[in-house]
Amino acid sequence: MSDTALPLPAGFEDQLRALLGSSNAKTDDALAAVDPGWNADNLKGGILALPGTTDEIAALVCLCREAGVSVVPQGGRTGLVGGSVSRPGQLILSTQRLNAVERLNPIERTVTVGAGATLQSVQEAAARHGLEPGIDLPSRGTATIGGMISTNAGGIMAFRNGVMRHRILGLEAVLPDGTVMSDLTRVVKTAAGYDLKHLLIGAEGTLGIVTRAVLKLDTLPQASATALFGLPSVEAVLEVIQLALRMPGVDLRGAEAMWKPFLDLTAEALGWRDAAIDRSAPIYLLLSIGGAEDGSLPAAFETLFETVVERFPDASGLIAQSSRQERELWRLREDTDLVYHAYPGAPSFDVSLPQSEISDYVERVETELKALDGAFEPLIFGHLADGNLHVILNCSGPLEPARMAAVEDVLYRDVKRRGGSFSAEHGVGTKRISPMEATSDSGKLALIRHIKASLDPEGLMNPGVIVRR
Amino acid sequence: MSDTALPLPAGFEDQLRALLGSSNAKTDDALAAVDPGWNADNLKGGILALPGTTDEIAALVCLCREAGVSVVPQGGRTGLVGGSVSRPGQLILSTQRLNAVERLNPIERTVTVGAGATLQSVQEAAARHGLEPGIDLPSRGTATIGGMISTNAGGIMAFRNGVMRHRILGLEAVLPDGTVMSDLTRVVKTAAGYDLKHLLIGAEGTLGIVTRAVLKLDTLPQASATALFGLPSVEAVLEVIQLALRMPGVDLRGAEAMWKPFLDLTAEALGWRDAAIDRSAPIYLLLSIGGAEDGSLPAAFETLFETVVERFPDASGLIAQSSRQERELWRLREDTDLVYHAYPGAPSFDVSLPQSEISDYVERVETELKALDGAFEPLIFGHLADGNLHVILNCSGPLEPARMAAVEDVLYRDVKRRGGSFSAEHGVGTKRISPMEATSDSGKLALIRHIKASLDPEGLMNPGVIVRR
Repeated sequence: MSDTALPLPAGFEDQLRALLGSSNAKTDDALAAVDPGWNADNLKGGILALPGTTDEIAALVCLCREAGVSVVPQGGRTGLVGGSVSRPGQLILSTQRLNAVERLNPIERTVTVGAGATLQSVQEAAARHGLEPGIDLPSRGTATIGGMISTNAGGIMAFRNGVMRHRILGLEAVLPDGTVMSDLTRVVKTAAGYDLKHLLIGAEGTLGIVTRAVLKLDTLPQASATALFGLPSVEAVLEVIQLALRMPGVDLRGAEAMWKPFLDLTAEALGWRDAAIDRSAPIYLLLSIGGAEDGSLPAAFETLFETVVERFPDASGLIAQSSRQERELWRLREDTDLVYHAYPGAPSFDVSLPQSEISDYVERVETELKALDGAFEPLIFGHLADGNLHVILNCSGPLEPARMAAVEDVLYRDVKRRGGSFSAEHGVGTKRISPMEATSDSGKLALIRHIKASLDPEGLMNPGVIVRR
Repeated sequence: MSDTALPLPAGFEDQLRALLGSSNAKTDDALAAVDPGWNADNLKGGILALPGTTDEIAALVCLCREAGVSVVPQGGRTGLVGGSVSRPGQLILSTQRLNAVERLNPIERTVTVGAGATLQSVQEAAARHGLEPGIDLPSRGTATIGGMISTNAGGIMAFRNGVMRHRILGLEAVLPDGTVMSDLTRVVKTAAGYDLKHLLIGAEGTLGIVTRAVLKLDTLPQASATALFGLPSVEAVLEVIQLALRMPGVDLRGAEAMWKPFLDLTAEALGWRDAAIDRSAPIYLLLSIGGAEDGSLPAAFETLFETVVERFPDASGLIAQSSRQERELWRLREDTDLVYHAYPGAPSFDVSLPQSEISDYVERVETELKALDGAFEPLIFGHLADGNLHVILNCSGPLEPARMAAVEDVLYRDVKRRGGSFSAEHGVGTKRISPMEATSDSGKLALIRHIKASLDPEGLMNPGVIVRR
């Protein structure tokens, strides 16, 4: 493993500028002008390479191997677990110049894109053909396809369409030894030997650099509608999701839950209120549906609401009457910056649980957090149709280490036993290695380390991420 | 690598019987009573182990390592590419006793099953809750979940639901070193380090033995309907599939194409005819839809047919009026044994192509086969919505090697350039290693061999499959 605390070797920067052109290797003032994204340490490496082609990335990886310099790949810098943090002596590699939407075929419903293309650019290209990539998340304008592949991103449509892994048909990557693996099939069916793109998907840049991908596209519905329900329990929310999944002629596109403390915070910060919603309910469900452009969607919601009220007489509900109102409702859920405004550096978690375990898990977590500190009240929200809960603690961070360990123990202790995951969609990065080690199967952990050592024996690809240095 | 031409080491059989109980190690007459499945060489190994638990499989793998005996895992023995062929000196390991449907949760829509459970047993368990595993193939009664995972099975719903890989939430496997990797999450969202279940999926038993899995379930529609269309061209078929995908309130569940020579053969063998279908059309499309049990499905097909005839005046169509007629239409497509009856041992292929490439590819293949031999006429059928073509040559096999090589060159030469795959859903086995080597990316091939050598350095797990011995 290289000692990346050392400065870059003599001549390395000149070789880099010769390879990419001087303007594509940023240091000092040029680097200071770059947005570090959601983690101030992302650009600590001090030198940023902006290759423009797969061949340039392959040459760059070879250059780094010869010099013993490790590589930190970066996409949109929207990661939340420190997976793209860099240190002096490392080379930061941005894929932002590989941002082309290269080829979109509306009949075969595929699109081939560079790793640096943003999700939004792909969504816009697809929408021009009445199609969509079938995955969506709040950071769509910044998150890149390469970054979403490397972290196996999830988002609001995963319960329906799967996660990033399920949307990828083909992949091209530069491996740690500098070779290019090009597997750009555009078909869903391939049983053609080990499907090694799945080793790169979710590897967070530790096994190579994703350079290009083929994504599956789906039909974009002609119209959509949004509703918010106030409900008496997690069980009620899950039952309403089941009902919504079976609405005839309508596709459920989003089913986001907000526990009362979370909605109270965002609603107050945004000055939102609506008399139709009973604000004393313990939990709220934001539903989005898609279908034909014939005005039938609000009526479908009304029918659903009638069934819901029959089943849960205390339920309240609101169907958005305009796209402005739709946006307002979504903002209550998506504007999570408001929470960090209220509690800067608040400890946050991203777990997933089978639906049958959610209610019991949340009750245990709330009780045990309260036992740790009577003021602790978790702000819980997330993608309930796939069991993905985001949990933010109502206190500023960072907590002192022993206290944080106690909180983590509460959050993670039983997620594996319950059939869930300590990291649903944010990845492992540098921040979640301890919970991974604490909650994962020993056979899986050993195999992860074996694969890393076998494919990147010198530890040059994003060292310290997923596997400890 | 072990020399598996040697007989089993002295004492091995006794150790095996001591481990599993004597009745769970079959040789001689007991083995002769076992159905070898679709390849007579499957049971050539001469000794069949029937472990009943994951722990027994782990102990068995350790026993084999100590003795230097290689292991050939088998599920339903329905594989088509020689992936479970065994030789004397090897141990055949059947998962058939791990056949429990262990846990089905209708709210979270997951089912946990042993590797030896048949697809049909899982379909029946799910149907009792109005659910389905979302994958289907003609060998459902025999194919096991473990075998379908190991070959990354596809089938008729893959265009809609993805292949086996996309249906698996959790996996347990015994690795080549005898350790158990248990990753039985029941959630779709997990970004928790390398997702190594995807290394086992499609590995055809060469990296370990799948013992247990968690599958996603979907809503089973209340009703279904089937129609057959005669159409003027591949382009017409693809356009009708697009129209069918956009039918309001209806889910497309199958879109199977049959070129005229294939339908002529199965229709004649089954004595099928129907005046509604113009039998001079060059290609036929079998559509299956699902939806509400309100009688609206046939009407939906009639509306579709009106649009189709407007667009293609020569089109003909038939909507099944009974479940008996539905089964008849499906038999035309699924009873492929009829082809092998007519041409025993006929060379057969299983490629996938992006939809935009299908027409051009088929035209080239037909022309070049005719140039090789004026009597060659491929029988083509398959899952056109995902671009998966099955091609059987109209001659008995095997061909002599040079001729077979010339035929393979015609079939495989450009599948990679076109963005397709030389093996869509049957796997590589022993039969498709040459086309894999001829058509795959060199970086991918090198990584496949590296992974195999790294995880199974002694080459004890299904040697000679995917990677040459």
